[in-house]
Amino acid sequence: MSAAEIISPAHVVEETDIVLVRDSLRVTPLFRDLDDRVIDRLAIISRIVSVTEDFILCRQGEMAASLFIVLEGQLATSAEAANGTSAVVEVIRPGGAIGLPTLLARLPRPISARAISASRLLSIEAQGLLALVAEEITLVTALLRAEAEDFRALVRQVCDLKLRTTAQRLGCYLLSLSPDQTANAVALRLPFDKRLLAARLGCRQENLSRAFAALRALGVETHGARVILHDIARLRDYALPDAPFDGKMA
Amino acid sequence: MSAAEIISPAHVVEETDIVLVRDSLRVTPLFRDLDDRVIDRLAIISRIVSVTEDFILCRQGEMAASLFIVLEGQLATSAEAANGTSAVVEVIRPGGAIGLPTLLARLPRPISARAISASRLLSIEAQGLLALVAEEITLVTALLRAEAEDFRALVRQVCDLKLRTTAQRLGCYLLSLSPDQTANAVALRLPFDKRLLAARLGCRQENLSRAFAALRALGVETHGARVILHDIARLRDYALPDAPFDGKMA
Repeated sequence: MSAAEIISPAHVVEETDIVLVRDSLRVTPLFRDLDDRVIDRLAIISRIVSVTEDFILCRQGEMAASLFIVLEGQLATSAEAANGTSAVVEVIRPGGAIGLPTLLARLPRPISARAISASRLLSIEAQGLLALVAEEITLVTALLRAEAEDFRALVRQVCDLKLRTTAQRLGCYLLSLSPDQTANAVALRLPFDKRLLAARLGCRQENLSRAFAALRALGVETHGARVILHDIARLRDYALPDAPFDGKMA
Repeated sequence: MSAAEIISPAHVVEETDIVLVRDSLRVTPLFRDLDDRVIDRLAIISRIVSVTEDFILCRQGEMAASLFIVLEGQLATSAEAANGTSAVVEVIRPGGAIGLPTLLARLPRPISARAISASRLLSIEAQGLLALVAEEITLVTALLRAEAEDFRALVRQVCDLKLRTTAQRLGCYLLSLSPDQTANAVALRLPFDKRLLAARLGCRQENLSRAFAALRALGVETHGARVILHDIARLRDYALPDAPFDGKMA
């Protein structure tokens, strides 16, 4: 286990109760198609860790000691450029995993991950997982599928950055937060602060403010972290979000 | 085989000579660590196809019938957004593969690929490759490693789009074309047209012209597709390119 992945007891609480671990594995989307026998084998090499806000789970350049899957809370992944600046690559929400491609390929991590709120995670021991992969074909299928979905999410983000304005990207993001895709108005709360939102969207904070101002004419009302979308159909026509991922990649 | 992958004889020439196919597999970076026995098994399910400029090799949404690896020439991959516009995701040069993650996961392709010059490719039959994957562990290792490298390239591109200005992105791209990393001056030829270069960098053509103008002060001289870098050290200080990938992901 590398230095940054050593668990500091002040910031981390571990749960190893096998029933709890098994139940958490079972409700993880990544493992939805696995039968109980494979889940039981995974449970033996897994534990649940709870971390405080700002805890660094792993750092770019390290070999992966664990596969992390978010149960509750949120992580921000980031990568550092040669000049020392770093970009937020993605915000990982419950169900998402960190660093699967490099773990499977036994390469160092391309990104760092930090908890942006208190979070609970499944931590699956990397060596044990690689040993299981050699024996359980349904596990390989599940992991390769997750990898392809992560790959596709990055392809979408590249397209998003190349094709959409900041205001359109913000509009797509706000629409993605709307729980009811059929309603025409909704009140939401931003799940993280505007500084991180600007970094995730790839703009400066002043550009994010301008983007919120541009969306006001489309019925987007903001009060701090509270956002009301008054006319979802109009916002959708403007931002043109991608179809949600349904495993069909149409 | 899906409709778009049906080979139109007017645009495609096939070579199935087993010695030629085997030699091409052997010099492909993706397969550099495989022994002759595995290469021979791959050769049986592979052929070489030569396609004309603008030939569409595969389309977003289709299931992969083949894994394509570029031997000569170049492909542009692109993805379409909900509004019908499409973004160039990457230009694939010799050694690069198309659509490995989704092929391994048996999901539809997230991108389309078009030959941007006359190209020669290895075409490896998907079903045969998946059958080999179940039997040859060294092949699995090679494919997972390639997948992780592709994933990392996309992470870098996301960071590039979020952190660098268009002029810096152009500077990084020109530096990547320089064959001698120790020289301080070099004459290059752009390997594809400026319209595609703008699309790959994620900017409008007028912004690409402005970026070339901004780099003039840093010793970048252009005459159509010919480019002279007069002061590589200075350009490097300005554009701050990422370290080249050496498999260590430092």
